[in-house]
Amino acid sequence: VKVSFLGLGRMGHAIAGRLADAEYDLLVWNRTPGRAGELTGRGAVAVDSPREACAGRDVVITMLSHDDALRQLAFGEDGIVANLPPGSIHVVMGTHGVDAVIELAARHEAAGQALVAAPVLGRPDAAAAGELGIIVGGPAEAVERCRGLLAAIGRRTFAAGERAESAMAIKLANNFVLGGAIEVMAEAFDLARGYDVKPAVLYEVLTGGLFAAPAYKVYGQIIVEEDYDRVGFTVELALKDINLALAAGGHAAIPLPSAGILRDRLLGAMAHGDADRDWAVLAREQTRASASEATGPRRSPAQ
Amino acid sequence: VKVSFLGLGRMGHAIAGRLADAEYDLLVWNRTPGRAGELTGRGAVAVDSPREACAGRDVVITMLSHDDALRQLAFGEDGIVANLPPGSIHVVMGTHGVDAVIELAARHEAAGQALVAAPVLGRPDAAAAGELGIIVGGPAEAVERCRGLLAAIGRRTFAAGERAESAMAIKLANNFVLGGAIEVMAEAFDLARGYDVKPAVLYEVLTGGLFAAPAYKVYGQIIVEEDYDRVGFTVELALKDINLALAAGGHAAIPLPSAGILRDRLLGAMAHGDADRDWAVLAREQTRASASEATGPRRSPAQ
Amino acid sequence: VKVSFLGLGRMGHAIAGRLADAEYDLLVWNRTPGRAGELTGRGAVAVDSPREACAGRDVVITMLSHDDALRQLAFGEDGIVANLPPGSIHVVMGTHGVDAVIELAARHEAAGQALVAAPVLGRPDAAAAGELGIIVGGPAEAVERCRGLLAAIGRRTFAAGERAESAMAIKLANNFVLGGAIEVMAEAFDLARGYDVKPAVLYEVLTGGLFAAPAYKVYGQIIVEEDYDRVGFTVELALKDINLALAAGGHAAIPLPSAGILRDRLLGAMAHGDADRDWAVLAREQTRASASEATGPRRSPAQ
Amino acid sequence: VKVSFLGLGRMGHAIAGRLADAEYDLLVWNRTPGRAGELTGRGAVAVDSPREACAGRDVVITMLSHDDALRQLAFGEDGIVANLPPGSIHVVMGTHGVDAVIELAARHEAAGQALVAAPVLGRPDAAAAGELGIIVGGPAEAVERCRGLLAAIGRRTFAAGERAESAMAIKLANNFVLGGAIEVMAEAFDLARGYDVKPAVLYEVLTGGLFAAPAYKVYGQIIVEEDYDRVGFTVELALKDINLALAAGGHAAIPLPSAGILRDRLLGAMAHGDADRDWAVLAREQTRASASEATGPRRSPAQ
Repeated sequence: VKVSFLGLGRMGHAIAGRLADAEYDLLVWNRTPGRAGELTGRGAVAVDSPREACAGRDVVITMLSHDDALRQLAFGEDGIVANLPPGSIHVVMGTHGVDAVIELAARHEAAGQALVAAPVLGRPDAAAAGELGIIVGGPAEAVERCRGLLAAIGRRTFAAGERAESAMAIKLANNFVLGGAIEVMAEAFDLARGYDVKPAVLYEVLTGGLFAAPAYKVYGQIIVEEDYDRVGFTVELALKDINLALAAGGHAAIPLPSAGILRDRLLGAMAHGDADRDWAVLAREQTRASASEATGPRRSPAQ
Repeated sequence: VKVSFLGLGRMGHAIAGRLADAEYDLLVWNRTPGRAGELTGRGAVAVDSPREACAGRDVVITMLSHDDALRQLAFGEDGIVANLPPGSIHVVMGTHGVDAVIELAARHEAAGQALVAAPVLGRPDAAAAGELGIIVGGPAEAVERCRGLLAAIGRRTFAAGERAESAMAIKLANNFVLGGAIEVMAEAFDLARGYDVKPAVLYEVLTGGLFAAPAYKVYGQIIVEEDYDRVGFTVELALKDINLALAAGGHAAIPLPSAGILRDRLLGAMAHGDADRDWAVLAREQTRASASEATGPRRSPAQ
Repeated sequence: VKVSFLGLGRMGHAIAGRLADAEYDLLVWNRTPGRAGELTGRGAVAVDSPREACAGRDVVITMLSHDDALRQLAFGEDGIVANLPPGSIHVVMGTHGVDAVIELAARHEAAGQALVAAPVLGRPDAAAAGELGIIVGGPAEAVERCRGLLAAIGRRTFAAGERAESAMAIKLANNFVLGGAIEVMAEAFDLARGYDVKPAVLYEVLTGGLFAAPAYKVYGQIIVEEDYDRVGFTVELALKDINLALAAGGHAAIPLPSAGILRDRLLGAMAHGDADRDWAVLAREQTRASASEATGPRRSPAQ
Repeated sequence: VKVSFLGLGRMGHAIAGRLADAEYDLLVWNRTPGRAGELTGRGAVAVDSPREACAGRDVVITMLSHDDALRQLAFGEDGIVANLPPGSIHVVMGTHGVDAVIELAARHEAAGQALVAAPVLGRPDAAAAGELGIIVGGPAEAVERCRGLLAAIGRRTFAAGERAESAMAIKLANNFVLGGAIEVMAEAFDLARGYDVKPAVLYEVLTGGLFAAPAYKVYGQIIVEEDYDRVGFTVELALKDINLALAAGGHAAIPLPSAGILRDRLLGAMAHGDADRDWAVLAREQTRASASEATGPRRSPAQ
């Protein structure tokens, strides 16, 4: 299988490295040059344009951070759709909106190509270690042809079904569930603190019981230590994903009240200058709303 | 230590049984007679009134389901405060509102008694097996004197601090966090289903990753199987607790937007006749809001 | 008709004055003595206890600010229910919760008395001028017997039906609609200001068009001038009423999402020390959430 | 002044008619042909393309219903920006998003042209009668040059300032305030009905008091009569505007919790098949949430 990988940010670089190490015939490209360096030492060949990266390939993989970047790379004369051979496959591994994916799938289908969405679960270090989860959606035959490739990349795949956007819906749902857990923790820690409870005690109760899972341990720890500069996922990126979840809901006429609250709180964090902090900083937004940031533990209005 | 146990519902019965088996000098009482039966065979002595249950005891424990029941039992001529000796301790193990607990603590203090709040984490079967978690709040000396007793009951204690209501705040925060997890799952499963995703696949993604914890496994399973008659915690009791969390927030001037959404959805479930179903039925409320209950997977308005 | 009036706050005093001037046989009482003074010059007779105020009267009117005060005055040995003659009527003119009113109505009915709820629309100065609107609910015959009395007090009555709590539901709905108007204005003015719009311009657009009504003119003006010390209705009293609206919704299993937002924002205002300011200060809560209070007009995160 | 008018829907047709009657040198164009007919009899000249409509004109006015339509018409080789002479003005009278307007203003400025935003308040019949309100934003000199033109169209102008998007922010804020009024009425009428209150009585209380304004009279009447097919503004168009308000908030990092609720309820209405009904149908969404649509007046869960 001749593969090309476009988009060599931290995550893309780690995934492309897995393919290089698995000795795939691999071309790599990045908008900003100079990112391929180390990969070429592992067998990848750097090319100068998306056009070159597409010509004559079986599979082209993209790992991009925004829908706009995906559209720019996919459409137009020099884009993926125009330059990938018929019968080939575009695997989208970034997290994108359902609208963008639906549009892209239609364009690829019209060009005799297939779109497979394969967003990932995990961080770049997990990617490098082959520990990613991969959610896969797209036409069954195309998905089948990607099986080996995806096995070389990740630990496990989840089958989303025949619609590429279904895979994105699952990825967005996963991040939304995480955001919901963080927001409710933010409120719950503030409530407890209003009654002089040490945050570490509530943390113990939660993670020692019904919530003994990474979502609560990792983000709860950040909240307890108010260490919002230890960034797993920034407010800005989280806002992007929650907006995509809301848009996916909008597209399908599904109200998502908890996502609305998350969006408002993330916007508040943006406004307060926390765009680049970890999104557990929602706990600080909560204390701004309750004035407990400024004044310490609450006193009852009635006291 | 001479102990009395008041309130022999399923949870109270299980806890009192632990104390009987540990050979405590134990009086038991229940509003509705006939609940003590089996306990007397294990060494407990049934009495006919709260007054009898209080006279000359070191510790009286209550396990009641509502604030009103607690107030009725504690106050008045025949109540706990009036009949418990000075120097004794009232251990409240039910889940109660902070207002009720603050009032009760003040009354006990005025009578030379101490109030310890000790709400529990776990179900009646866990209680019978000595597997409960216990959150303990109250004056340090009184808490210290309860140590052996609580060790006979549960697996682990969490120290909430010197205010009894702090323990309730933690318990309410814990249940609120659980409700938040359920509500966000409810929305996320509906979103995914709107894109033809099988609920079981999203369940695998969640519980196989960041959310590998009982809250998501137990309630996610109920949602996937739409098996809302497999009741862990009813909508009606959940609404009681969320209202107590909101009241605790109100008392301390802490806004809790996620609790507001939970309250609304639980009220909707009440209105739709699901009061006695498991609160995972919030997933059904979500599908009512998005009309997907009636119409199956969503279609985009634009299609 | 022999009438007694209990509760001589600003509103109660103004209403009792109307009855005095209409030459009713009028007894007056207030918990804190010394409030009746000027009324006695107009023909009212001050009495020393609720018991005296009830004995042998046809109608007793209460104007109290809290449910607790109403319960204390109505129940117990020295209370209204115990001391009012059979066949007489208790007219509740304060704004109370539906639960309190339902309980009170049942007690009066059991005592052979009738409860009429008659909450008012308007301020004390409108009351003094006979310009109040009065919402009347209760048994038809009792309402009919109050007709002359209410005509002496207000400008217009609205018939809520045979249930006393229906009148309270209308009053609470009215205040809730007002709160909703204020909250949405708060958000809209902040949105406009984020685009360098002068608040006075948006005010002109609103009040010169679809919103040419006192709710928008009075509270919009306060928002434009940020003059939250010009108090029409305090945050604390508004919170009481919104909580009563939420409780009325809870009692009837009716979710009220907009009331949830109002509650959260009013709690935030309490927490920020604005309890005694006009509830238009919700506009300041909004600017706290968007950080525009501190930083002036918003800049796009993307700029 | 040589004027062109593009977009002859109901509103555009009515406004263009005002200009024709005022004897402006007027070219008209519409994407779907055959809409100009009657206008040509009043002195307008129909042209076949936007290019023709732009060449050599002083002012081109667009009245379009979507941002996409505006972008398609404005950009590209045959678009407004490319074909309007330097020094000329584009007046955008449709309701558009701030992002689209900011982008458009930059493009016009780069081409030596000016963008003036002039969204309108009122319905097509008001437009035909010259009764519109017009919110005007853009560079002062360009706005000044449009003064006569706008005076020929409307009854009154509101000065939004030098940024075109400011005018859009005001228009969106106005519609958001209207939506908020409708949603809170929806909830309040449901609350009242839960206590057997006839909707017409609450309507009298509201519109006879603080809410004696068209927003409450028009939409309250529709709610009282449940006459959602009497359409002033459809759910689908309302959703578009609320989404634009949320996007404007997002662009400036301003959380808008009430808009989030509106969005969810409008999506629910879409999902329930009410896209083409008047947005007062939010009252029906509310009764769906409270189950009172199906079951009639609520009964307390406790009864």
